[in-house]
Amino acid sequence: MAPVDKYDIVIIGAGPVGLLLSTCLARWGYKIKHIDMRPEPTLTGRADGIQPRSLDLLRNMDLKRPIMANEPAKVYEVAFWDPSEKGIQRTGTWASCPKFIDARYPFTTLLHQGLIERVFINDLEKHNTRIQRPWRITGFQNDGKDEEYPVEVSIAHVDGEDKGQETVRAKYLFSGEGARSFVREQLGVKITHKDPIAYVWGVMDGVVRTDFPDIKMKCTIHSDAGSIMVIPRENNMVRLYIQIASSTDADWNPRKSATTEEVQATAKRIMKPYYVEWDRVEWYSVYPIGQGIADKYTLDERVFMGGDCCHTHSPKAGQGMNTAFLDAQNLAWKIHHVESGFADRSILKSYESERKYVAENLLNFDAEYAKLFSQKQPSADDIKTASKQSSGDSHGEENPFIKKFKESCEFTSGYGVAYLENVFNWSENHPAKHPLFLSAEKGTTALRSGRILKPATVTRVADANVVHLEQEIPLNGSYRIFLFGGKPSKTKKAIADFAKNLQKKSSFYSVYAREDIDSVNYHERHNPHSHFFTINTIFNAHRPEIEIRELLPALLSRYHDHVYADDVWDQRVPDAEAAAHAKMGLSQEEGGVVVVRPDGYVGCVVKLEQGSGTVDALNEYFGSFCAKKIGGERAVL
Amino acid sequence: MAPVDKYDIVIIGAGPVGLLLSTCLARWGYKIKHIDMRPEPTLTGRADGIQPRSLDLLRNMDLKRPIMANEPAKVYEVAFWDPSEKGIQRTGTWASCPKFIDARYPFTTLLHQGLIERVFINDLEKHNTRIQRPWRITGFQNDGKDEEYPVEVSIAHVDGEDKGQETVRAKYLFSGEGARSFVREQLGVKITHKDPIAYVWGVMDGVVRTDFPDIKMKCTIHSDAGSIMVIPRENNMVRLYIQIASSTDADWNPRKSATTEEVQATAKRIMKPYYVEWDRVEWYSVYPIGQGIADKYTLDERVFMGGDCCHTHSPKAGQGMNTAFLDAQNLAWKIHHVESGFADRSILKSYESERKYVAENLLNFDAEYAKLFSQKQPSADDIKTASKQSSGDSHGEENPFIKKFKESCEFTSGYGVAYLENVFNWSENHPAKHPLFLSAEKGTTALRSGRILKPATVTRVADANVVHLEQEIPLNGSYRIFLFGGKPSKTKKAIADFAKNLQKKSSFYSVYAREDIDSVNYHERHNPHSHFFTINTIFNAHRPEIEIRELLPALLSRYHDHVYADDVWDQRVPDAEAAAHAKMGLSQEEGGVVVVRPDGYVGCVVKLEQGSGTVDALNEYFGSFCAKKIGGERAVL
Repeated sequence: MAPVDKYDIVIIGAGPVGLLLSTCLARWGYKIKHIDMRPEPTLTGRADGIQPRSLDLLRNMDLKRPIMANEPAKVYEVAFWDPSEKGIQRTGTWASCPKFIDARYPFTTLLHQGLIERVFINDLEKHNTRIQRPWRITGFQNDGKDEEYPVEVSIAHVDGEDKGQETVRAKYLFSGEGARSFVREQLGVKITHKDPIAYVWGVMDGVVRTDFPDIKMKCTIHSDAGSIMVIPRENNMVRLYIQIASSTDADWNPRKSATTEEVQATAKRIMKPYYVEWDRVEWYSVYPIGQGIADKYTLDERVFMGGDCCHTHSPKAGQGMNTAFLDAQNLAWKIHHVESGFADRSILKSYESERKYVAENLLNFDAEYAKLFSQKQPSADDIKTASKQSSGDSHGEENPFIKKFKESCEFTSGYGVAYLENVFNWSENHPAKHPLFLSAEKGTTALRSGRILKPATVTRVADANVVHLEQEIPLNGSYRIFLFGGKPSKTKKAIADFAKNLQKKSSFYSVYAREDIDSVNYHERHNPHSHFFTINTIFNAHRPEIEIRELLPALLSRYHDHVYADDVWDQRVPDAEAAAHAKMGLSQEEGGVVVVRPDGYVGCVVKLEQGSGTVDALNEYFGSFCAKKIGGERAVL
Repeated sequence: MAPVDKYDIVIIGAGPVGLLLSTCLARWGYKIKHIDMRPEPTLTGRADGIQPRSLDLLRNMDLKRPIMANEPAKVYEVAFWDPSEKGIQRTGTWASCPKFIDARYPFTTLLHQGLIERVFINDLEKHNTRIQRPWRITGFQNDGKDEEYPVEVSIAHVDGEDKGQETVRAKYLFSGEGARSFVREQLGVKITHKDPIAYVWGVMDGVVRTDFPDIKMKCTIHSDAGSIMVIPRENNMVRLYIQIASSTDADWNPRKSATTEEVQATAKRIMKPYYVEWDRVEWYSVYPIGQGIADKYTLDERVFMGGDCCHTHSPKAGQGMNTAFLDAQNLAWKIHHVESGFADRSILKSYESERKYVAENLLNFDAEYAKLFSQKQPSADDIKTASKQSSGDSHGEENPFIKKFKESCEFTSGYGVAYLENVFNWSENHPAKHPLFLSAEKGTTALRSGRILKPATVTRVADANVVHLEQEIPLNGSYRIFLFGGKPSKTKKAIADFAKNLQKKSSFYSVYAREDIDSVNYHERHNPHSHFFTINTIFNAHRPEIEIRELLPALLSRYHDHVYADDVWDQRVPDAEAAAHAKMGLSQEEGGVVVVRPDGYVGCVVKLEQGSGTVDALNEYFGSFCAKKIGGERAVL
């Protein structure tokens, strides 16, 4: 019998969720079989909105530049249009990502899905991973016949097995198949409908001529002739979302459709008194949307699902692709930590608990939002109070849709995502009980576990470059330890003790030291000691005052490209001496240690103190989910 | 006889000056024959520093992103090292582009010349222009035998005419051949040596291991064992410049050389007490540098020279490629304006007068700088006063080299370049004498003619994007008219009159209207009315208050993608209501009109006033160099 090909993972579907997962794992050296039913990547249309938080992620993967090379449209503001006597009129505008959200990129990036897919596919090819097309999955089982590769997967050419078929074994199987998932059906996982209402939507991408003044903005337009959503796109295009039917209609028919011409005619009626003419239509599609969420994302922590396969909802808040990206990112580093021997296999359960929680929040938001959007709005003349400014601080009586929209900005930007307490996200209930843990609840730090690290601009000491601290470690599977060093004169002993205790043989740091630690390349910047940790040190000092080798013990000065001066003024904390320290809510004198998960979310925050306490606390934290035993007192070196 | 091939221009040499010229002209539709003696682009080494002003230019050509995709090193600070008892010690650091310079990108970008060349070559290929290699020029004459194509140029394969040779006719010939120029020699143009001192330099690119703390910074190191300059590079590389001989040496020999090993040994001695070891050497070259400037850049305004062909100097201030870029940019739009019938042929004389003036300043700077760099420095202990801060405002007694360096920052960043008064750069001596001209001399604007437009951040009204105003018009050969509209309520009449007078048949604007003005594409953003002008309107108002079609007459609202709200706070003018107006030194209530040349330099500034005066002044200004008659009173539509 011929030997069966073995893969670390088989990934079904090359949409956003499958591609991001594949890209991470390919970069980290995993062997991947990635198939897609389509003969080629998306050509036009489909998802198109990259939210601010997702752009952070893409930048962290070094993919922001190729995305931006496509000259996407950027949405900074949303305009609300409502019925008035003479047709529609603008009742207000609102920042897409208002100033109260501390976003590095406070805008939504609009680009069609195919261009986004291509960025990932190009990157995958650099890591010798190609999508096998057009192939589909025909069967799978976690039969455990091979302990290391417990899952058997059968795949075949979409045109039939005679065109090609393979049966392979894998450590994991991932379905990024979209709403219609063979894997989900085979597993018998049910979809729960949060909202019993369903809709039929038409979506049209094209180039128009119009005197409608906000055609390059995101707009929600409610008129007596219906409702429409306008989204600007690259290359002078515009996308129109138009609701064709709702299950609340008397004549509801989920198969109701509309022609291009009908949708254009409706759009013209809605947008009166403005004219709108089409130069061309690039893409048009009608599809029913049912809101739903999969009851399980995995049954056995071997066969996983993510993206649209697990959650479907209306397209209007632009969340589908973004949620898919974060599903994939969440799973990628957890699989990596289990397979590389760093973490206990039990951490894989947190993929479902973290991501399903986010999807549930998304669906709750979406149900309310979609319902409000579909409702006929009161005439603008009734609600003159809607603000005309976008500063994010207006008040007054607004219509419920606008009110909901504003409330939801943090969520839709991606920054509202907060994972609940678990082994990664420290809380009072965490198994690690050391007294040095700081928390937002106690007011001892401004950082919240399970939330993204706040952005901060600092000066890198080695080359005096002004950099974004939160981006200094790429998405490489490492924990990011931020040692906020306060004033060097005050923390010298505490930092020396921190390094000394990291060097103890049983510390989390030493237990996961690289095997080749004595022969690591001189130019290795991020992981000279361990593949799982990078240490950044940030001092409350001006750059030229920081002599790395004088201020830091050898273990820490080895990260000479990751030492920073907290000397850049920040408008958000204008009176702070050290803005980054201040934003994190840490003492500008005494500092503190922030542990950030590989995906950029805060894990825990610990007081920086003389003695072994700081490292003891971290040992307890990592010990709660690491595969090897951590902790003890034997010092080395 | 076979018909002779005809080209708009023949360009010799595909280094920075030739490539930038070629790229501009290719984009504007000119037919180009571009040859280079080298069989392929630069592989390693050579010029590598892109100064802040040049990065503005590359961004304006949409080439910054591909440059940055190469992950260049960025120099924000320069460190000065001087002799001390134990070897060398740092005596101070200084911002490479200090805060007193209002630079959008306050750093130098380091990338080897080959990667930069490739960015241009890729762009040229998109415009169907390829470099013919390895070919050289064998003869030329402006024989005028063809009035339209007066220059005959003969070129051949470098390996001999039997491998290929052509004789073509061209409107222009440009030599970007570098210091050894066949064209310059044939023309008999002499080089004048500003500074009689010559040097032999060694330059070495490589990867090193060292404990020298500033290896990722630009450093000037003076030691008792000699002097060296350190420049960081992409891919962990570092460039060392080391002076091997000076004509002031007793044993001066311009052919003196040194081996790689000798230079490395010298570097080790200079850098004591720090160690430095080479992993590899990527490039090493020794070359004599004589300071010189060509007496003429052209004799007939048909055969032009630029770049190293016209000026040579020491490499240490990183000015060669940057000066070359600006030579090419300066010539490109002037040729374009003559060939397209916009401007009188006499404007071509200003290429030499503007660019030779800049080169002379460069050489004066360079001579002084090189001399100071070569001199043995006093021991650091003697000059303890050198500042340790980089804020740009320290004082105290410094050594002459550091003092010179600081004084020169504006010049080396590229922002010190100021063209003298001429037809483009309005002054009291300009033929246009209208009383509405404003000037820095009179204190009626902060903008200086012949200087780059100040950067300003504003909000684009159409899509609410926060943008860099100075970058809103690409380098497309158009004049950029910035109508600062002040408070809309105060300027409504003045703006209406401005538009009305632009519409008069004899205005500069109407005289150069597009022939196809009635059938211009709806989506044309920059040049709907004229290929030579784009109008930007900036109001002192918040974005949502600006209804483009209500505030602006049709002529101006046609530029709906070029209307801006001056509503972004700027740290440099913290108390201004409208920061861009304030930075330009214009009334925040009444505004003003700024004419910016196609290359980004301010041409003239005119008061915005009711009546015809504002346009009358501009008619006088453009009338002084335009090919067609401008001015008069007949109004149309």
